[in-house]
Amino acid sequence: MTLRIGMIGPGGMGKAHIERIHTVISGGRVVAVSDVNPDNAKAVAEQIDGTAYATSAELINSPDVDAIMIASYGPAHKPDVIAAIEAGKYVFCEKPLAPTAAECEEIMAAEQKAGKKLVTVGFMRRFDASYREMKKILDDGEVGEALMVHCAHRNPTVPEMYTWDMAINDTAIHEIDTMRWLLGEEFVSARVDKPKKTSLRFEHLQDPLVLILTSESGVRVDDEVFVNCQYGYDIQCELVAEQGVVRLGDQELVHRADKLGRRNRLTMDHNQRFGQAFVTEVQEWITAVSQDRHTGSDSWDGYAAAVVCDAGVAALTADGEVPITMIERPALYA
Amino acid sequence: MTLRIGMIGPGGMGKAHIERIHTVISGGRVVAVSDVNPDNAKAVAEQIDGTAYATSAELINSPDVDAIMIASYGPAHKPDVIAAIEAGKYVFCEKPLAPTAAECEEIMAAEQKAGKKLVTVGFMRRFDASYREMKKILDDGEVGEALMVHCAHRNPTVPEMYTWDMAINDTAIHEIDTMRWLLGEEFVSARVDKPKKTSLRFEHLQDPLVLILTSESGVRVDDEVFVNCQYGYDIQCELVAEQGVVRLGDQELVHRADKLGRRNRLTMDHNQRFGQAFVTEVQEWITAVSQDRHTGSDSWDGYAAAVVCDAGVAALTADGEVPITMIERPALYA
Amino acid sequence: MTLRIGMIGPGGMGKAHIERIHTVISGGRVVAVSDVNPDNAKAVAEQIDGTAYATSAELINSPDVDAIMIASYGPAHKPDVIAAIEAGKYVFCEKPLAPTAAECEEIMAAEQKAGKKLVTVGFMRRFDASYREMKKILDDGEVGEALMVHCAHRNPTVPEMYTWDMAINDTAIHEIDTMRWLLGEEFVSARVDKPKKTSLRFEHLQDPLVLILTSESGVRVDDEVFVNCQYGYDIQCELVAEQGVVRLGDQELVHRADKLGRRNRLTMDHNQRFGQAFVTEVQEWITAVSQDRHTGSDSWDGYAAAVVCDAGVAALTADGEVPITMIERPALYA
Amino acid sequence: MTLRIGMIGPGGMGKAHIERIHTVISGGRVVAVSDVNPDNAKAVAEQIDGTAYATSAELINSPDVDAIMIASYGPAHKPDVIAAIEAGKYVFCEKPLAPTAAECEEIMAAEQKAGKKLVTVGFMRRFDASYREMKKILDDGEVGEALMVHCAHRNPTVPEMYTWDMAINDTAIHEIDTMRWLLGEEFVSARVDKPKKTSLRFEHLQDPLVLILTSESGVRVDDEVFVNCQYGYDIQCELVAEQGVVRLGDQELVHRADKLGRRNRLTMDHNQRFGQAFVTEVQEWITAVSQDRHTGSDSWDGYAAAVVCDAGVAALTADGEVPITMIERPALYA
Ligand SMILES: [Mg+2]
Ligand SMILES: [Mg+2]
Ligand SMILES: [Mg+2]
Ligand SMILES: [Mg+2]
Repeated sequence: MTLRIGMIGPGGMGKAHIERIHTVISGGRVVAVSDVNPDNAKAVAEQIDGTAYATSAELINSPDVDAIMIASYGPAHKPDVIAAIEAGKYVFCEKPLAPTAAECEEIMAAEQKAGKKLVTVGFMRRFDASYREMKKILDDGEVGEALMVHCAHRNPTVPEMYTWDMAINDTAIHEIDTMRWLLGEEFVSARVDKPKKTSLRFEHLQDPLVLILTSESGVRVDDEVFVNCQYGYDIQCELVAEQGVVRLGDQELVHRADKLGRRNRLTMDHNQRFGQAFVTEVQEWITAVSQDRHTGSDSWDGYAAAVVCDAGVAALTADGEVPITMIERPALYA
Repeated sequence: MTLRIGMIGPGGMGKAHIERIHTVISGGRVVAVSDVNPDNAKAVAEQIDGTAYATSAELINSPDVDAIMIASYGPAHKPDVIAAIEAGKYVFCEKPLAPTAAECEEIMAAEQKAGKKLVTVGFMRRFDASYREMKKILDDGEVGEALMVHCAHRNPTVPEMYTWDMAINDTAIHEIDTMRWLLGEEFVSARVDKPKKTSLRFEHLQDPLVLILTSESGVRVDDEVFVNCQYGYDIQCELVAEQGVVRLGDQELVHRADKLGRRNRLTMDHNQRFGQAFVTEVQEWITAVSQDRHTGSDSWDGYAAAVVCDAGVAALTADGEVPITMIERPALYA
Repeated sequence: MTLRIGMIGPGGMGKAHIERIHTVISGGRVVAVSDVNPDNAKAVAEQIDGTAYATSAELINSPDVDAIMIASYGPAHKPDVIAAIEAGKYVFCEKPLAPTAAECEEIMAAEQKAGKKLVTVGFMRRFDASYREMKKILDDGEVGEALMVHCAHRNPTVPEMYTWDMAINDTAIHEIDTMRWLLGEEFVSARVDKPKKTSLRFEHLQDPLVLILTSESGVRVDDEVFVNCQYGYDIQCELVAEQGVVRLGDQELVHRADKLGRRNRLTMDHNQRFGQAFVTEVQEWITAVSQDRHTGSDSWDGYAAAVVCDAGVAALTADGEVPITMIERPALYA
Repeated sequence: MTLRIGMIGPGGMGKAHIERIHTVISGGRVVAVSDVNPDNAKAVAEQIDGTAYATSAELINSPDVDAIMIASYGPAHKPDVIAAIEAGKYVFCEKPLAPTAAECEEIMAAEQKAGKKLVTVGFMRRFDASYREMKKILDDGEVGEALMVHCAHRNPTVPEMYTWDMAINDTAIHEIDTMRWLLGEEFVSARVDKPKKTSLRFEHLQDPLVLILTSESGVRVDDEVFVNCQYGYDIQCELVAEQGVVRLGDQELVHRADKLGRRNRLTMDHNQRFGQAFVTEVQEWITAVSQDRHTGSDSWDGYAAAVVCDAGVAALTADGEVPITMIERPALYA
């Protein structure tokens, strides 16, 4: 009755998923682990009283594993996702599904061959209660049609290894997926604006930057990416529609008044801000898989994010807009 | 490894607990049911593929049941709680622990004889993230000592069967427990003020009323109980301390601006407002019991709530303050 | 065309009124000054290029003075107010109208003899845009009838000379007047609750305290008076009505997010918080007087405040409620 | 001692200024009027008991007029402003100073010849308490250097005669001036993005649009102009700086909770939102002029706004960025 999960590549995110599954989520258990570093696999397996497999292929094909979670390095995702599909097992793959659109297409080909959606991509914001409420208000027609969305993605700081393209591929990718989901349409062009740089960053980085996306119907999304804003992990989103605007709430637990003013604490990282979204995401996946249902983002979402990210990265050095072209959407993902 | 739980008296609250345990909580499963109405026991048992017991005593003493949850009618709690204690099993009992202080004393006597805290009373607000943040700020000394707390407990409406004493025993009891926990001290007196009555209520009811409690150290707590406020389920709490004040946040998921102004939705009942607190409460209980640890409110908390409620009810018709006297706190609950 | 105003007793408040009248208010000018300290009168007169009078009586009766403002010490108010009435001149008297109800009655007697409302008492909150909006919502019937009002009057600190009765006579008097005006009825009883004292105060003072007033129709007003709250000048007011609640807004000019959280500055004194209300108050008075109209609080309001303050002071040492009895309201003030 | 003001072209804005000056502003009086429509001049003059002049030139040169206010149609401004300068009189000119940069240059030439700043342009937001607080925080270095500003300028609706260029020349011009003032630098390029159009507008209009400006130091300002947003007059501004962000506050007088949620009213037009800013603007001008001082926006500000508006209008139909080139700043405006 308990879903037996095999975890591939448990680093920080994978271990956090294990912790969640074992302490605050119903219906699943991580029973198997594999890792490019066998010592890590062994250590994690020991902690959870599970089995360490020598290779991800063995783990995927083990009869003792019902479903797969992939938390390895992005470039390693493709073969494991495809192997899981070929084994007929549901697979939860952390974002990105794969670093290139071409790899995502291969995954979709395998999935279409299997004739069934098995892949869920780990875009957790779709599970955040505030974003969900925003989408519900929009979908219920309470504010008319969407015209614009103003997003901001702010992190206190990033380390020196954070390079320019990561602003798109690792940071803005969250807004890219969330906006596709919120609006229910694809993007057709990307542009990047480069404001004055903060002095509080490593020299090589353009920070902040603004990614501007246009959707099929013309909705304009701007996403301020500012990863050295110093003050907090601050995720803003304001939907501007024909008859009203909707913003994410303040996420404040309490507010206080003291000598520093009337104030509330800000979250400092994505675990604080989206901790509950991660729990809901994995819970809904385990529940769905246990009932042989797909849930959450699918391979097409992974592909679309990859395509938009490619355009966004191109826009970093392009002059003006970069068009976004996608393959036709396969029927499986209609 | 999964905690096997026996549920006594599954009405609305009990069924909600079962639903939570089976869908979004880790480590437990309700496997047994009993009810004064055997048909209800049978129906619920069937739904969860569990066993219906003819009596609560049989359920409690079954070797197939590790821990007990009691969600029956308050007056029925005592014998079951004591039976669970005598069986050496952890028991989660919905509030009130028992309707009278005398019964709570009997429970404490049994528990002291067992020499171990086994009873948890279902006061869920202690598990609400906002109240917890407030308590942390106070306990960390960030605002100095508490001097006053202003509470409001507002419900949209109540049915005709809601009587005056229920304003204390069913409604204000939440603030009574939460304030004891927040302040870490007992109350020594209660008074009830009776404002102008709303016309939008059944004739027999004093609504709103204000319960005023004084703690051992002199902290003054006022609790506005207004159960026909029409507009929402609105739980307010403002802690006034020596160097600052702390309030519960707005609990808004999003806010919007439209023709009705800048606004956010209000919760309409305790399940909406405290849904996550209920989950956390039961999760923490299952986790603790699985590790043979007590967690949450204990029998002393149940006793103290009963005593303060008695004083509150007396204050409904008394002129002025009603003193609150408790027995000496047994060492087990120190 | 310019209203020629004579100012009696220009201390801090009087000078602030002069400054306002001469720099940001239309239609008036302070042309004459008197003071128990003739040097002060001379100094102020010189600054404004006006005339210093040896006595307030001479100032009041001067043909060069159209209207009177009294900003002297409260115990000195009565004879000057009466002299102004007898001279047939409009008079703006800072609160309190007079320290005792008996003196206020003498003033009302003089005014009734004059047959015309000439006296305005300086209760500036009636001119605050937020309180006015609250009153408009109530008067327009948008939230049904008022049932309770929760007020808080918090100051950062007070000096050692601030005595207990001043918590009523100087501090709570603002809520007393504002609530009479908001609710449109009189209070019939007063009680004072004494919470735990802050350690950050002079030893002789009960701080905070809570004044509880009941109106004719049963509306319950509580007013937390906390004059050493450390963190700001924080005026709170929440009206609880049958179909909704209304609170004063945050008064924030901007809010910011930085390392201290998401926050806005608090006002630190009544000039910051009610600066615009003072301007509006005096502007409306000058405009009205120039048109031979009365405006603002009248002598009855001054009397009623004095009676309620007396009860409040009695309640400081009384056990329980102190009844409030007023004379019948003269027709002039109907 | 009272500043005698001559008003040219009193339409809606001019009459509002007269009303303010005569009822809530100190130190000035409108004593003379002229208008292209002599009947209007006569009617207004009668109301204020002043003199109607046949031409603006006569009004400007009258010895009975100390200072000039121009509230006529923008294309008519230039000759009157120059005449006032040549008469050596201070002149308050409603925005725009003149519709073209060339005309503004003529005005600056005249003013330089006069050797003294005499012209104030009516950009009232510089006098809004919230914008001023934002600027103070920035200028005080509390949040580091400015990097970006996100603005929104939303109106409920506009009439059919509102054309596309007005979105820049009449609407965005406010942000153009306010951002120049806030940042203390000039803009070097403009671009316009065209989101999906709202269906709730006249067909000919692109609404909303986003104007993007870049300053000399690289600060990026985006200004969402949405003049048929339906729900209110909503002016948003968020300054993103190196160490924190600052936003305009909510401008709420009260907030309430009722069946529609927790909410506060929005302002519905610029008079509601900026009513006090208008008063402060005119008061400060009258006070300054009475002391022979210049205050507020000067001719250079009027010129710069015109140049940026020209670029903004060009950007409406251009592909990509339009560069902004200004003449060298004359020493008089340094
Ligand atoms: Mg994720
Ligand atoms: Mg409970
Ligand atoms: Mg006053
Ligand atoms: Mg203007």
